[in-house]
Amino acid sequence: MKKTIGILGGMGPLATADLYRKIIEHTRADRDNEHIRVYIDGNAAIPDRTAAILHGGEDPVPEMLSALRHLEACGADCIIMPCNTAHYFLPRLREQTALPILDMQRITAAVCRERFPGKTAAILATDGTVQSGLYDRALDAEGVRWIHPGESEQKSLMHLIYGVVKASRPMEPEKERWDAILDTLRGQGADLFILGCTELPVLAGVLPSEGPFLDPTDELAKAAIRFCGYEVKE
Amino acid sequence: MKKTIGILGGMGPLATADLYRKIIEHTRADRDNEHIRVYIDGNAAIPDRTAAILHGGEDPVPEMLSALRHLEACGADCIIMPCNTAHYFLPRLREQTALPILDMQRITAAVCRERFPGKTAAILATDGTVQSGLYDRALDAEGVRWIHPGESEQKSLMHLIYGVVKASRPMEPEKERWDAILDTLRGQGADLFILGCTELPVLAGVLPSEGPFLDPTDELAKAAIRFCGYEVKE
Repeated sequence: MKKTIGILGGMGPLATADLYRKIIEHTRADRDNEHIRVYIDGNAAIPDRTAAILHGGEDPVPEMLSALRHLEACGADCIIMPCNTAHYFLPRLREQTALPILDMQRITAAVCRERFPGKTAAILATDGTVQSGLYDRALDAEGVRWIHPGESEQKSLMHLIYGVVKASRPMEPEKERWDAILDTLRGQGADLFILGCTELPVLAGVLPSEGPFLDPTDELAKAAIRFCGYEVKE
Repeated sequence: MKKTIGILGGMGPLATADLYRKIIEHTRADRDNEHIRVYIDGNAAIPDRTAAILHGGEDPVPEMLSALRHLEACGADCIIMPCNTAHYFLPRLREQTALPILDMQRITAAVCRERFPGKTAAILATDGTVQSGLYDRALDAEGVRWIHPGESEQKSLMHLIYGVVKASRPMEPEKERWDAILDTLRGQGADLFILGCTELPVLAGVLPSEGPFLDPTDELAKAAIRFCGYEVKE
């Protein structure tokens, strides 16, 4: 019996649709019926994760649990979350469910080590993800060198995530800002870029730039496909 | 209290992701939390609808009901389906649930009348949708003139739907075939094209051609947004 996926989504909505699409595109299938059954709760009511971690904002866990219960009721065999920052709350979620929740940062760090041995990864993420050290710890555990953007580039990045992608504003006018962030990090030794906020693969898709980029959503999708016993199409 | 949407999906998977994306893009929202809560059961196990209608294939209703029950359990306030052909089974589904199921063909026909008064619509759809007369009846009810593709164009269209989009094959090489279908229909009096199979907006997005096109998935998304009490962004 092949397994099913539950997406604890809505963080953000576009990133959730993007993750679902990636699961479909990476599944080796010739017909609808050969695809994986995917359950999604796109719970847009989940409070902002960065605000909760850094500024004492509303705890997102109750709304995340509401979605988790729905996915359990549907019969999902594993849970994935299309939000890097949300993984800060992974230990609390795991206490509340018997279902396996796949860990986006661990999966990404392992891919860094395998695909880019000896290279330095720049972590592009929200303030919440960066300051919580989620990627630092996962990359350290795999022996991968990493750097963070400086204060000014981080501020620029937060504008792109919150002021543009999450706000559904046009991305094309932001090309220069995006390239400037990447160039600065390259000058500081970055060999590759982890698109460590799920809005960033959306942005990088619209604004093509020199990489290489690693898309944790993509790696999460592929890990979930393998977990379910289906074959991955690269 | 704002309402929520349940997508009875998986028919096909890409069309389901596409519908979810359209809901997000058409919702007037500046932040994640201003979006609609959307539940999805992407049930890839639902048997092919066209095969069931035309060739005595397996009845899809039991698997559709399985998804419907999940969406009810999540607390969805309305149901939408990203598959035109599936609407053939709408009367049987409605007998089984108290939830409103929005009707893609009715919504589309009303938009045809309002936006293209006096014009002739070409119905681009699967054999199952065409032969079941789903769009014919909905357009007749609104007083909209319509035509179907001839046998050869219909065969070509079925190849694009099943052999290309559903099979996740590259769409770019199919540009000539797609344009030939549209040109023939235009010669037969078509003023606009109803993309009446949810794989076709995916195709039309990749292969830009002269329209005008009416995307029933888009109209369904907007109708669902209004149903939930949110504001539509065109």
